[in-house]
Amino acid sequence: MNEQERPFVISILGVGLMGGSLAMALRGFGANRRALHIIGYDPVSAADALALRAIDEAAATPEQAVQNADVVFYCSSPNSILRNMRDTFSYMKSGCVASDICGVKTELLEFIENEMPRSLHYVGIHPMAGRENSGFINASAELYMNAGFLLIPSRRAPETAVRLMRDICVHIGARRVLVNTAEEHDRIIGYTSDLMHIAATALCEEYPPNMTMAHTAGAFRDCTRVAHIDAELWTELLLLNGERVRPHLRRFIQSLESFERALASEDAAALRDLLSTAAANKEAMQRL
Amino acid sequence: MNEQERPFVISILGVGLMGGSLAMALRGFGANRRALHIIGYDPVSAADALALRAIDEAAATPEQAVQNADVVFYCSSPNSILRNMRDTFSYMKSGCVASDICGVKTELLEFIENEMPRSLHYVGIHPMAGRENSGFINASAELYMNAGFLLIPSRRAPETAVRLMRDICVHIGARRVLVNTAEEHDRIIGYTSDLMHIAATALCEEYPPNMTMAHTAGAFRDCTRVAHIDAELWTELLLLNGERVRPHLRRFIQSLESFERALASEDAAALRDLLSTAAANKEAMQRL
Repeated sequence: MNEQERPFVISILGVGLMGGSLAMALRGFGANRRALHIIGYDPVSAADALALRAIDEAAATPEQAVQNADVVFYCSSPNSILRNMRDTFSYMKSGCVASDICGVKTELLEFIENEMPRSLHYVGIHPMAGRENSGFINASAELYMNAGFLLIPSRRAPETAVRLMRDICVHIGARRVLVNTAEEHDRIIGYTSDLMHIAATALCEEYPPNMTMAHTAGAFRDCTRVAHIDAELWTELLLLNGERVRPHLRRFIQSLESFERALASEDAAALRDLLSTAAANKEAMQRL
Repeated sequence: MNEQERPFVISILGVGLMGGSLAMALRGFGANRRALHIIGYDPVSAADALALRAIDEAAATPEQAVQNADVVFYCSSPNSILRNMRDTFSYMKSGCVASDICGVKTELLEFIENEMPRSLHYVGIHPMAGRENSGFINASAELYMNAGFLLIPSRRAPETAVRLMRDICVHIGARRVLVNTAEEHDRIIGYTSDLMHIAATALCEEYPPNMTMAHTAGAFRDCTRVAHIDAELWTELLLLNGERVRPHLRRFIQSLESFERALASEDAAALRDLLSTAAANKEAMQRL
């Protein structure tokens, strides 16, 4: 059968919160009007995903999952993504586009530039969406609605591969799609995501005796929401991006020490300055 | 006319976000089946509040506002509350219950225990509700729905005054009402509110070049939401509670330094410990 009759095959390795939501949101995506066929691989949740028709076929191994794929999405945790890429690249057909949803890209891109066969293309994505609860059970076709998407193509990725990935992002709900280098991506995400998760968790390392939920309002709820964290996943993510997170973390600690000094010396002007700068920056950021 | 025929008069000094919402939410409150009459004082927004029937009468001065009141709510900023109390206590009728919505209570209680006439009663409240935008224009009858309320009675406050204030809290939407001492209140709020606001604003003192909103997701949105802060009000609040906020802030900085050390030494076990402790504490707090 010719290319137009063959379905367009997308394989998803890791059908948890992110991969499961991706599978659900991909429904209706038509590349060149070809039917879509979604293959999933996940030792934990592929059966559930198949039963719920989130995927059309469950593969027994990563190698089997990628064999006929036009696009492969690696959607597991960072170290598992690297392992799966290493195991599967040689099984993929020429022209296949490899992608992933990993939140840290620099090390991944180094590996890809050095180890990926020239017959394959790579355009990584980072969907700016998530949830503090993981697993396929929390997946939803709406997870990516209105999210920002960052595309990180390898140096040799053809424009057609970038366009295909952009089309997929728009189909699954992207409000905005930007192309970044891996280094720029990781430096900015070190602030917008990693530092926020460190702040939220550090806020929960201790809490005062006799505190109750009746003592809390929106500030507590929002500032600590993501402290309900997947410790394994975030240990990997923070270590992979540690070098770029540390300067943000240092500046954050220095800002807190400025608050500390202003409080100790009861310096109203200094406090007012710190608060006004933050309020102005917060407003400026909302317009970026 | 006897007491049963006279309306029950509640005066609100400061008809902004908090006082305006209180006025709206009080509608329908009947103390001993007497009709309710709400008097507001606010040089900026009393006219708007009257036009929208949030209040029944606008007083020209704080003194005039309190003269016939059964309950007086002081709802302006902390220093203005102290000033208004000083100016109005001698105009209030015997048995009147004074209250306020100030987020810091220790200094206020000191003033009240020393300066309030014995003929008046004091039961302060702290509604655990708010919004990052202030002013009567943002007021709403729903602001206090499902909020926790903390009651801080003065040493001499009679049980009837505490019960009246509890009834008012329940009427305007309280899910839970707790009685605290001023010191305990301020120590716990130093964590659940003050530290959260410091964290959110310190996160916004700087941001990386080339960052866009497409690089942000829920963690950024929630961790920085309250950085859109009223700098004047929060300078007052933080200074008033500085002594009790500083130990929380110190522990927070120490936790962040633990993250810093773990990242610098690429210590996965230490990171995992920090993240797991936070996740467990976050879950434990939700049940308090």
